[in-house]
Amino acid sequence: MAKPLASIVSAGVTRFGAREGVYARELFVEAAQEAFDACPNLSPARDIDGLFVGMMSESYEHQAHVAPMIADWLGILPVPAFRTEAACASSGVAMRCALYAIQSGMHDVVLVGGVEKMTNLRTASVTEVLGMASDYPFEQWHGISFPGIFALMATAHMAKYGTTEEQLAKVAVKNHQNGTLNPKAHFQKSITIGDVLSSRVVAWPLKLYDCSPISDGASCIVMTAPKLARRFTDTPVHIVGSAQAQDTIGLYERDDVTSMNVTRIAARKAYEMAGVRAEQIDVAEVHDCFTIAEIMAYEALGFCSQGQGGRLVDDGITSLGGKKPVNTSGGLKAKGHPVGATGTAQACEIYLQLTSQAGKRQVDGAEIGLTQNVGGSASTGVVQLYRRGD
Amino acid sequence: MAKPLASIVSAGVTRFGAREGVYARELFVEAAQEAFDACPNLSPARDIDGLFVGMMSESYEHQAHVAPMIADWLGILPVPAFRTEAACASSGVAMRCALYAIQSGMHDVVLVGGVEKMTNLRTASVTEVLGMASDYPFEQWHGISFPGIFALMATAHMAKYGTTEEQLAKVAVKNHQNGTLNPKAHFQKSITIGDVLSSRVVAWPLKLYDCSPISDGASCIVMTAPKLARRFTDTPVHIVGSAQAQDTIGLYERDDVTSMNVTRIAARKAYEMAGVRAEQIDVAEVHDCFTIAEIMAYEALGFCSQGQGGRLVDDGITSLGGKKPVNTSGGLKAKGHPVGATGTAQACEIYLQLTSQAGKRQVDGAEIGLTQNVGGSASTGVVQLYRRGD
Repeated sequence: MAKPLASIVSAGVTRFGAREGVYARELFVEAAQEAFDACPNLSPARDIDGLFVGMMSESYEHQAHVAPMIADWLGILPVPAFRTEAACASSGVAMRCALYAIQSGMHDVVLVGGVEKMTNLRTASVTEVLGMASDYPFEQWHGISFPGIFALMATAHMAKYGTTEEQLAKVAVKNHQNGTLNPKAHFQKSITIGDVLSSRVVAWPLKLYDCSPISDGASCIVMTAPKLARRFTDTPVHIVGSAQAQDTIGLYERDDVTSMNVTRIAARKAYEMAGVRAEQIDVAEVHDCFTIAEIMAYEALGFCSQGQGGRLVDDGITSLGGKKPVNTSGGLKAKGHPVGATGTAQACEIYLQLTSQAGKRQVDGAEIGLTQNVGGSASTGVVQLYRRGD
Repeated sequence: MAKPLASIVSAGVTRFGAREGVYARELFVEAAQEAFDACPNLSPARDIDGLFVGMMSESYEHQAHVAPMIADWLGILPVPAFRTEAACASSGVAMRCALYAIQSGMHDVVLVGGVEKMTNLRTASVTEVLGMASDYPFEQWHGISFPGIFALMATAHMAKYGTTEEQLAKVAVKNHQNGTLNPKAHFQKSITIGDVLSSRVVAWPLKLYDCSPISDGASCIVMTAPKLARRFTDTPVHIVGSAQAQDTIGLYERDDVTSMNVTRIAARKAYEMAGVRAEQIDVAEVHDCFTIAEIMAYEALGFCSQGQGGRLVDDGITSLGGKKPVNTSGGLKAKGHPVGATGTAQACEIYLQLTSQAGKRQVDGAEIGLTQNVGGSASTGVVQLYRRGD
């Protein structure tokens, strides 16, 4: 297996959900404080030499330029701090910047995370803000929003491969079940296939329970040069592969909307970089913004062949206790999806799993993990691979 | 002098100004096409392996997630592409990401640029959008906007150091004069000190002509690993120093608002990294969003001692033909300030100067250049140093 690109030495994540009476900056500090408390050898003001923050939108709080503000609130001024934006992959991309920074030798210890404070706006407004991640003249003007965009993918997938509404529903049921085991999850109650199928149609075939919720939250990891990791922890998790790809922002330009090209391209590169095969993945967090997205992720990541994603969930392969547990955290569907926070929240879950700190949802003996983060209609795709430190 | 961190092998910038009937994506493509045309050895789809785009706000065009869209319009999919945001330093930060990426060895040829399409909104709306780069609960709520924030710095500077309204005006006069020599500048007409002093007060002591305009525009550079530069050009410009620092987002938290701390800290690091002293700089582009900011930049960059910035412009030191020409492009004041585009537009001007392509505004024999880019009320500061290739 390849040499580590960087190491995660601590991680923190807030409770996701409707978090009233706090600003995004306060959520970020809450996540960071958890990471700091878990890493007593880290002296933030002395050790951290960069802060990279993923956040999708200034519109939720009328607040741009968040990175220096968060650096201030964390007491780590004047370290370089900036925001990355790639829609729902904003903090996945922040992690890639941290990898660049660490591999360049220009940074040693970077705090990288993401945040979004969404519930202070009405649902219609949130839908409109999220819609900015689609193409303005070619998509937004026509009134389509993301549930509609993913519904187009779902109907095409159903038509081409026979994927069923029940299979989509089973993704939601699985992830809600996992959410019951995650005290930070937005939803911590199990649901049935019947609940999903009978829930309100948002954009057919996607019903309310096929959609991830609107959540507030923040997450972060402390990433170091591999050679420094043992200074901070006895149980580092190494990032051994990372790749990113882009596709057209509009669906209308794609040859095939049933395949998640960005994930397929990024996964191939990340596997090659890490010297890891899909079969070796012990635990994965994938971008289930809608249930169809998780099924398409299975296929693009090589967890099954193209078109067979529905069967994977039918067979319980991706359930906790199955051969390849996916979204043990509850995923975006049940854990919640404060969009800027999602990329690093996925990394937090893998960090917990590979350091045996995942509590009731622990995958026994997990050594190799994967995260798959997507922006917009899979116009941005980030895939990263993790290995438990020896 | 230090080894190059990366090399600029081509650059492109659109005409700045009110650009009607185009989207930001089209402006970016216009800038990139100029860079591509000037570099016949570059095959964009084959050679470019990353696209980093600085843009301040999604609010101007109701469009986030711009990087993959621009990659699509440039025909360079699926290369990794993302947006950086640090208010008016958004593309200065994008350049730093490109340095990380190239120094890491994970990228060889990166297209890095910035864009903003601002004039489609009314002035009041633009002011509100820009205001998002200040602190929401502590500044925006009180109704202060950026002219007011920089006016606070100006009055403090005047009180402490005796800086005068005439000195501020002379910065505008100088930069407008330079703008007459730049066919891409938003304003290409000279003005007098009387014009500035008699123009409408925006926030005393800043008058209309002390303020940079609202502009549309894009800019980009092609940045490569130093060892690859000669494959693309006989006249590369090397980046030999780069540093970034942060300060509190709100002025109210600072001990002293007459000193631009982020620039001072970043300049010290960048000079040290490059093995260059302030005296050696032949030409500089600094962030004159307001005239006071240029005077404070002189001081923070070590072009003069603290409090003496006004005298520098009195003595014509920073005029074209002076000992240390600053803002030969016209600066933000006359060239224009499409905020996301500004950081890389500064680099474009230095590239032109150090390759003797600056036409009527050429600084003879310029070998070492500097850019200073600022975000918000100087909460973000980026300083970079450039050397003409041997």
